[in-house]
Amino acid sequence: MAHRRERALEVVRAAGGEALLATRPASVTWLTGYAEEIEWGPSPFALSPMALLTDDAPPVLIISEDGAEAAAALSCEVFSYRGFSVEPIDPVGGATRALREAVGSRLVATEPGYLPAALAPEVEWIDIGDRLRLVEAVKDEDEIAKIRAAVGLCDAGQADARARSVPGITELELWTHLRFAIERGAGARTPIVADCVAGPRTGDIGGMPGRRRIEEGDLVLVDLAPRRDGYWADSCAAWAVGEPSKTAIAHHKAARERLERVLEAVKPGAVAADLDAICRTGLDYPHHSGHGLGATWHEEPRIVPGSRTVLEAGMVVAFEPGSYGDGEGVRVEQVVLVTDDGCEILSGHSLDL
Amino acid sequence: MAHRRERALEVVRAAGGEALLATRPASVTWLTGYAEEIEWGPSPFALSPMALLTDDAPPVLIISEDGAEAAAALSCEVFSYRGFSVEPIDPVGGATRALREAVGSRLVATEPGYLPAALAPEVEWIDIGDRLRLVEAVKDEDEIAKIRAAVGLCDAGQADARARSVPGITELELWTHLRFAIERGAGARTPIVADCVAGPRTGDIGGMPGRRRIEEGDLVLVDLAPRRDGYWADSCAAWAVGEPSKTAIAHHKAARERLERVLEAVKPGAVAADLDAICRTGLDYPHHSGHGLGATWHEEPRIVPGSRTVLEAGMVVAFEPGSYGDGEGVRVEQVVLVTDDGCEILSGHSLDL
Repeated sequence: MAHRRERALEVVRAAGGEALLATRPASVTWLTGYAEEIEWGPSPFALSPMALLTDDAPPVLIISEDGAEAAAALSCEVFSYRGFSVEPIDPVGGATRALREAVGSRLVATEPGYLPAALAPEVEWIDIGDRLRLVEAVKDEDEIAKIRAAVGLCDAGQADARARSVPGITELELWTHLRFAIERGAGARTPIVADCVAGPRTGDIGGMPGRRRIEEGDLVLVDLAPRRDGYWADSCAAWAVGEPSKTAIAHHKAARERLERVLEAVKPGAVAADLDAICRTGLDYPHHSGHGLGATWHEEPRIVPGSRTVLEAGMVVAFEPGSYGDGEGVRVEQVVLVTDDGCEILSGHSLDL
Repeated sequence: MAHRRERALEVVRAAGGEALLATRPASVTWLTGYAEEIEWGPSPFALSPMALLTDDAPPVLIISEDGAEAAAALSCEVFSYRGFSVEPIDPVGGATRALREAVGSRLVATEPGYLPAALAPEVEWIDIGDRLRLVEAVKDEDEIAKIRAAVGLCDAGQADARARSVPGITELELWTHLRFAIERGAGARTPIVADCVAGPRTGDIGGMPGRRRIEEGDLVLVDLAPRRDGYWADSCAAWAVGEPSKTAIAHHKAARERLERVLEAVKPGAVAADLDAICRTGLDYPHHSGHGLGATWHEEPRIVPGSRTVLEAGMVVAFEPGSYGDGEGVRVEQVVLVTDDGCEILSGHSLDL
């Protein structure tokens, strides 16, 4: 399998473009390794990063100077414009000049859902639409290594949350502990998509941590998707504090059994909708059965009814069947790497009830 | 002073537009109160929210269904498109249809740095550029109430960080504690822009929390800007663990004295550059002396050299002179509301060394 940059350029040429102008943050990370700080929203000093890929040079990152230090370690050229400073703020003007300089007269294939209208007249462009998404789904070795590292953070967070689930602790306290386990492992602040709920909200699939105190007999459901070095992992488990109810035991048995069955069926050539059907048999949940992950936390191959996407070796997919009802719910999620003849389970966290 | 929506429409009419199409996330929050979840970056299921303001109806939010529940409590109409689901993902298609329906044939004044190029052909638009920024700087009562609540979170975080600064604790542990104090106060996950460093990095203005352990005699510098209900606050203080060095004492005295002087000068009619000069006298720091805050964590009035922006009652401004050198640094920051004849200090955290 060719390196992702070569595969991206094939798609670009097929669309009639001379270069790729990535404007979706995940595409930029995928091409360059550059991952913007995201935890406090868009910067007032900069537009979203862009990346230009041509067939005769390393990719060019178009970012504000605030990202230049992080970008220096990457194998990219950087065209930057003024960011945080005491001078007037003009990210549109700065990005316009940097973009013009980087692109020149090339016809770029781009993602116009993420290209600012203010910049669009600066370059000649065509819409590459969603055609990059399937190319992004197959991971290179360096990407898999990053996902493995992020999965390690999931494992640390899940183990910590399980150990600290005792009566009296609030969801927010549990969340604080498990997030520290993740950030201690990373040595840095870490973006995390998460459900962290106890009690009746487990029956509603999940939710954000709040003030509720864990009670004896509660189920606790923790779904953790942290980002490390630009790449996301994912994980979910649910466990009982004290003795689980019969309902909880039934939910757990059903969800685990479906997860085991689907992982037996994962291999190159498997069709997403068929895997979805394996997960859903006997269960009735309103969400997807799984999804790819990488530079985003939800991408192709989406494991949903009706998807004809075919699995390929090198895809990294999270499967997460759930069983919910009667005020309790269990979802079990593992991340796997599709191999030549099956899959390797990357996740190492406990799925016990 | 007219309500912010009336003031926004005045700017729109002066630019020749019939309605305002807000596309910057902060402008959307400012017009509607809607604040998107930001801590894990842009959603794969949705484009950034937009808001349409006309002179004959409540504002219209254009968002994915994932935001509809949060939007239901606001005095807005909501035009939504499919978000998280098992159906195919098409945020560009969904947003295109919702935008067309909301805007109709109106000529909209918009922020093209944040309008996706894919949507730009759907509406007739003109660039309102940065002309909204000064309108946004003057806060309505409901906005001031939200900023006060966010300042309360700063105070809680600062107090906790100070109390827990003892030898042996790491920056990340300190960060975990203080963030919990903030999230416990909010009852929810809370986005925070922050510096949290100890020792030599205080001399470098700040940075993200890392693995360093606090040592006896260290300075600790904590700059906290949390968001609550869509509005940001800000705060900074630095303190010594044990006995401060002579250098630290000198930095602290100099920075505090400048903060006191500038707050004496804050009132309607004061010019940003003049306030900046008061802050900087005798100090030599590379950053701004202050900034407005509201639906963004850095906005007009920017307190920087060369800014002729004139303060008005209702502006909310953070002032933050700093003194750095010889491997130590102190920055003190308070948020004030500009009143009719001076200012009210909103911040309640300790500035002691």
